[in-house]
Amino acid sequence: MHKLVLMRHGESQWNLENRFTGWTDVDLTETGREQARKAGELLKNEGFEFDIAFSSVLKRAIRTLWIALDAMDAMHTPVGLSWRLNERHYGALQGLNKAETAARYGEEQVLVWRRAYAIAPNPLELDDPRHPRFDKRYAKIPADQLPATECLQDTVTRVVPFWNDSIAPALRSGRSVLVAAHGNSLRALIKHLDGISDDDIVSLNIPTGQPLVYELDDDLKPIRHYYLGDAAEIEAAMAAVAAQGKAKKE
Amino acid sequence: MHKLVLMRHGESQWNLENRFTGWTDVDLTETGREQARKAGELLKNEGFEFDIAFSSVLKRAIRTLWIALDAMDAMHTPVGLSWRLNERHYGALQGLNKAETAARYGEEQVLVWRRAYAIAPNPLELDDPRHPRFDKRYAKIPADQLPATECLQDTVTRVVPFWNDSIAPALRSGRSVLVAAHGNSLRALIKHLDGISDDDIVSLNIPTGQPLVYELDDDLKPIRHYYLGDAAEIEAAMAAVAAQGKAKKE
Repeated sequence: MHKLVLMRHGESQWNLENRFTGWTDVDLTETGREQARKAGELLKNEGFEFDIAFSSVLKRAIRTLWIALDAMDAMHTPVGLSWRLNERHYGALQGLNKAETAARYGEEQVLVWRRAYAIAPNPLELDDPRHPRFDKRYAKIPADQLPATECLQDTVTRVVPFWNDSIAPALRSGRSVLVAAHGNSLRALIKHLDGISDDDIVSLNIPTGQPLVYELDDDLKPIRHYYLGDAAEIEAAMAAVAAQGKAKKE
Repeated sequence: MHKLVLMRHGESQWNLENRFTGWTDVDLTETGREQARKAGELLKNEGFEFDIAFSSVLKRAIRTLWIALDAMDAMHTPVGLSWRLNERHYGALQGLNKAETAARYGEEQVLVWRRAYAIAPNPLELDDPRHPRFDKRYAKIPADQLPATECLQDTVTRVVPFWNDSIAPALRSGRSVLVAAHGNSLRALIKHLDGISDDDIVSLNIPTGQPLVYELDDDLKPIRHYYLGDAAEIEAAMAAVAAQGKAKKE
């Protein structure tokens, strides 16, 4: 049986400010760091050990991973980084406050941008300083693959090759794997793993900082999955994520 | 011109207690963390950027690297870890206080164990719980390559393949490289790079937490090297390292 643990990064500064983040390289809040520490301690107490870990190239995921590995006393775990695990690129919405955007365009439109499977927000202009072509960490990605906006379908399209080329081979070679990533890149991965439909995936909410354990068979088909933490806490965290698109934050 | 920066980890708990550390996985002190932060800020202010970083699998080197990369706002730098960059294995001396050992065996003997190029301390017994075969991170190293003690010559023997197989190819492919490691693994690397004799290498002292810049030509021969930091500070740090084997610490 193969073991894969998925972990969405802890609360970031822009989660807190309720802004569209996407590829903006925002750091964790103190709460986010504490969530990562707790996740690491939980994994350690439950006896998890990892042969390899993967993360996006965004610091909120990397820091979540670093803090969790530190709490597990496993800083020596090899880490593979890839832009393919980045959060969905939110295009021109990046930096906008979700509640303000909802008030201006209506909750319905925001929900479409956040959750419609195949509809992307307006792209960043090529000369927009937020365009990823100005960021050196993306210098080796061919221009035609570098997103300036994405719908979830686009995210799935670039996450799945990373599963095929990196995560799946590690699992097949007998390694246990930890992945630290983002709400939408993990959603993309889970869609692929569990064969979830385009319609159903948009309502799947992944709480921040809660280790999600997948047990996989020899063909890497999921046998079962479960969150490691306290059930009530996870329920509350999922509800909080679902509520983020509302005009007012309760 | 190729750029390589070497960085010895900041002060560890056992540096502070003046104990032989070797492969014992001791953490940084607060001073050590501060040194790493300063090193990262210095590298950033001097305009250094790295395409890849390497570290040993010991947490004092990894944490030094993490803190420095964080201070450089470059947490997304790919990191390669290898036991070949570990500190020299100090055999049965690991855990002993250097001053006590000097008082018992004489400063001369301690200096031999610390600095003779080809004389190793007594090895750890196979059933000693400190033996690296009980540590999972070394599980994939063939038993005949896993050290239970080392002289500096042994360290050179296992560091040089990592230079040849990992660091040199990265440099040749045009990458700038940061290496976070230890007093003796860096000494081994420098011996190889600069062609230093067996006799001379033992008196080379590398200060903790000070970035050491190597500029290399197309054949990876050193053109020049220099420490980035304040010259007086580096001098004092080198003297402190040289004084560690004395019976009393000034």
